[in-house]
Amino acid sequence: MENAATTTAKPRLGVNPLIASDRVQGTSVRRPDGEKIGRIERVMIDKISGKVAYAVMSFGGLLGVGERYYTLPWQKLDYDETKQAYVLDITRGQLESAPALNSEGETPLDRAAERALHEHYDTDPYWRL
Amino acid sequence: MENAATTTAKPRLGVNPLIASDRVQGTSVRRPDGEKIGRIERVMIDKISGKVAYAVMSFGGLLGVGERYYTLPWQKLDYDETKQAYVLDITRGQLESAPALNSEGETPLDRAAERALHEHYDTDPYWRL
Repeated sequence: MENAATTTAKPRLGVNPLIASDRVQGTSVRRPDGEKIGRIERVMIDKISGKVAYAVMSFGGLLGVGERYYTLPWQKLDYDETKQAYVLDITRGQLESAPALNSEGETPLDRAAERALHEHYDTDPYWRL
Repeated sequence: MENAATTTAKPRLGVNPLIASDRVQGTSVRRPDGEKIGRIERVMIDKISGKVAYAVMSFGGLLGVGERYYTLPWQKLDYDETKQAYVLDITRGQLESAPALNSEGETPLDRAAERALHEHYDTDPYWRL
């Protein structure tokens, strides 16, 4: 089960090509300067392609009261090993002016709102990837 | 935010192209005849492509003691609305003879074991999709 090439290097967490969904959930989202924006609640998976389409980030609130949710294109998030957080390079203004999408995951999203979201973030929609 | 076309049809859950990771987790896995095999603990996401590579299914045990984990290629799982479960069309023997992969998600999987797993289930590895 071992690789043919033996190595004395310590395994680095960063080299794992995979990440567990229950590990993504709860991970902090920070701005490049380190400021905490929120935390990931869930990711939304496209059933047909098996691709992650969105990360739903929660922000603010106490014990779930007053919490707000933001649907983010998965491509916008970069994991930073040092910060142990996803880094999102957008301003608070950009975040707050983003189209609001249903974040519960139980009902289909409105395709027009999804298009507006991807336009807002300048990302390719998952159904085109 | 509403669709231009008005419709009197009830929204069907089945038409949602997306599914939330925290909804996948905990969902039952059954055989086509309805027999329960286990439940999904987590999915493993390929960081680079954003594609779900595996579902980790737990089976048996009481309060986590004696539980066993099986790593399954995501493509092998079909969601069945009627059963409210993922349907896995394999025998218990096929499941038990599958190569065991680390199911914690914290350390990289052994590539040779991954290859053997995909061969066992006759699926394409996520790094080739």
